[in-house]
Amino acid sequence: MSARELVVLGTSSQVPTKTRNHNGYLLLWDGEGLLFDPGEGTQRQLSLAGVSASQITRICITHLHGDHCFGLPGVLQRLEMDRVTHPVDLWYPASGTVYIERLRGAVIGRAEVALRSKPAEEGLLADTGEFRLLARRLDHRVDTLGYRLEEPAGVRMLPDRLAARGVQGPDITRLQETGAIEVDAGTVRLGEVSVPRRGQVFAFVMDTRLCDTAFELAADADMLVAEATFLSEHADLAASYGHLTAAQAATIARDAGARLLVLTHFSQRYDDAGARARAEAETVFDGEIVAAEDLMRVPLPARH
Amino acid sequence: MSARELVVLGTSSQVPTKTRNHNGYLLLWDGEGLLFDPGEGTQRQLSLAGVSASQITRICITHLHGDHCFGLPGVLQRLEMDRVTHPVDLWYPASGTVYIERLRGAVIGRAEVALRSKPAEEGLLADTGEFRLLARRLDHRVDTLGYRLEEPAGVRMLPDRLAARGVQGPDITRLQETGAIEVDAGTVRLGEVSVPRRGQVFAFVMDTRLCDTAFELAADADMLVAEATFLSEHADLAASYGHLTAAQAATIARDAGARLLVLTHFSQRYDDAGARARAEAETVFDGEIVAAEDLMRVPLPARH
Repeated sequence: MSARELVVLGTSSQVPTKTRNHNGYLLLWDGEGLLFDPGEGTQRQLSLAGVSASQITRICITHLHGDHCFGLPGVLQRLEMDRVTHPVDLWYPASGTVYIERLRGAVIGRAEVALRSKPAEEGLLADTGEFRLLARRLDHRVDTLGYRLEEPAGVRMLPDRLAARGVQGPDITRLQETGAIEVDAGTVRLGEVSVPRRGQVFAFVMDTRLCDTAFELAADADMLVAEATFLSEHADLAASYGHLTAAQAATIARDAGARLLVLTHFSQRYDDAGARARAEAETVFDGEIVAAEDLMRVPLPARH
Repeated sequence: MSARELVVLGTSSQVPTKTRNHNGYLLLWDGEGLLFDPGEGTQRQLSLAGVSASQITRICITHLHGDHCFGLPGVLQRLEMDRVTHPVDLWYPASGTVYIERLRGAVIGRAEVALRSKPAEEGLLADTGEFRLLARRLDHRVDTLGYRLEEPAGVRMLPDRLAARGVQGPDITRLQETGAIEVDAGTVRLGEVSVPRRGQVFAFVMDTRLCDTAFELAADADMLVAEATFLSEHADLAASYGHLTAAQAATIARDAGARLLVLTHFSQRYDDAGARARAEAETVFDGEIVAAEDLMRVPLPARH
């Protein structure tokens, strides 16, 4: 299996700091690269992270506040300069279409990139066979979508049983595709030589108050990336600006049954924001927690 | 006199590097802050340079290629977040108005900043009494303006002669304003107690082939900021993309009689671009040369 990992490009909320650029997250998933919320400076952060713009296959924007999208023109220009020819799908809340058009239209160029705008409402956005991409509406100050990527359930083949039944080579693939094959010793059914394997799940919950859809997006996620703009001491600000506290992000991870929680989108008001958010989250969630730092790479946890 | 200095925010041409952000230059001139060519990431570079967005009083954009303007939405958002209430004038080539409107329109917000768009052609753009701001058309691939800031000529008062004639305190100001005053010993004329003093000049020449207007903008400049995208070994590329080599930038400085040449806008193709550009420029121009680095501050040379 190819690498599945999150490349963290930026981790600051509204105001960037010396160590935290505005948002930006590239999810590498086998051969795909899903860029979430390209804030200003994402183009440069991609270079600093050692990622080529040509690795981007899809762009998902949660909402049109500047810290989540002002990097779009630069990314588009880079795709063009790097002569990327594969199509790139761009999802964003449908009500933000006018802003997307302005950001796209700010680029002087030949517009050779096959960027396909996909104004989105809730629901299934794409099904590639390899994964399904879904969106749910969150609760922020402007229309905001959370995203969820689901690998379909599959099976894990059991080498011992395959060997015992004399199935090998191309027959294994044929068995997976058809569910049953004939060998010298008779019929072999897939269920006899495999066990079910659930698909991996990635969830992206940004800029929202605590809401039911956040839990739904995060259900059984192997990796949940969640904003933790505030600490609990500022829960009132979080509520009034439509954000989560670190404890609330951890509550989502815990109650939704997530395995790994990646905290990000920290307010510049806190020194040592990551460590404090993590400490607060640990009081709520006993799974794995990562406080995101710029240019960090976070692998998707290995399958159970 | 308040400080007059250039705060270098970014020094890369099209592609940012680990050490060079996209363009951005803030000229602090007494109480004013003129922001030239805010490329993507300028908002963060301002913070890293220790500059507050509220110091910006005017914005001058040479042309609408992304590396010279994609930072505009972020700067506008920052002005708004920082509750800047003073007016900010924004000049740019008139033919680029549609791009400016898209960049401005990408910002979701209350638009409380008193930003005054000033689509510009060649000529005098502003005369504050303290300085005149002028623009001339350059020779790039899209409409491009170079800028020049001129302090009006004045006088330097001579303390010895003032003392000899018994002029002191508020009388000095009155003499400067009226040109002559009566004192106990008779009439004192300004010319008797002062010598003429030329005004200081700043010139900004970005993204152009060698052209007459570049020399005109730079005439007798105390500081000339000039792009030096290429080295002479790539003079053919410079010509075809509408850029200067370091030697050409130095030729402008030499022939225009500039005092200090600040080289910038380096191509990412060169390792050690600044040092190489400077070495090349030194073979042509024997005035002071600075190869710009991000976050450097370059004082305007002291008056002669």
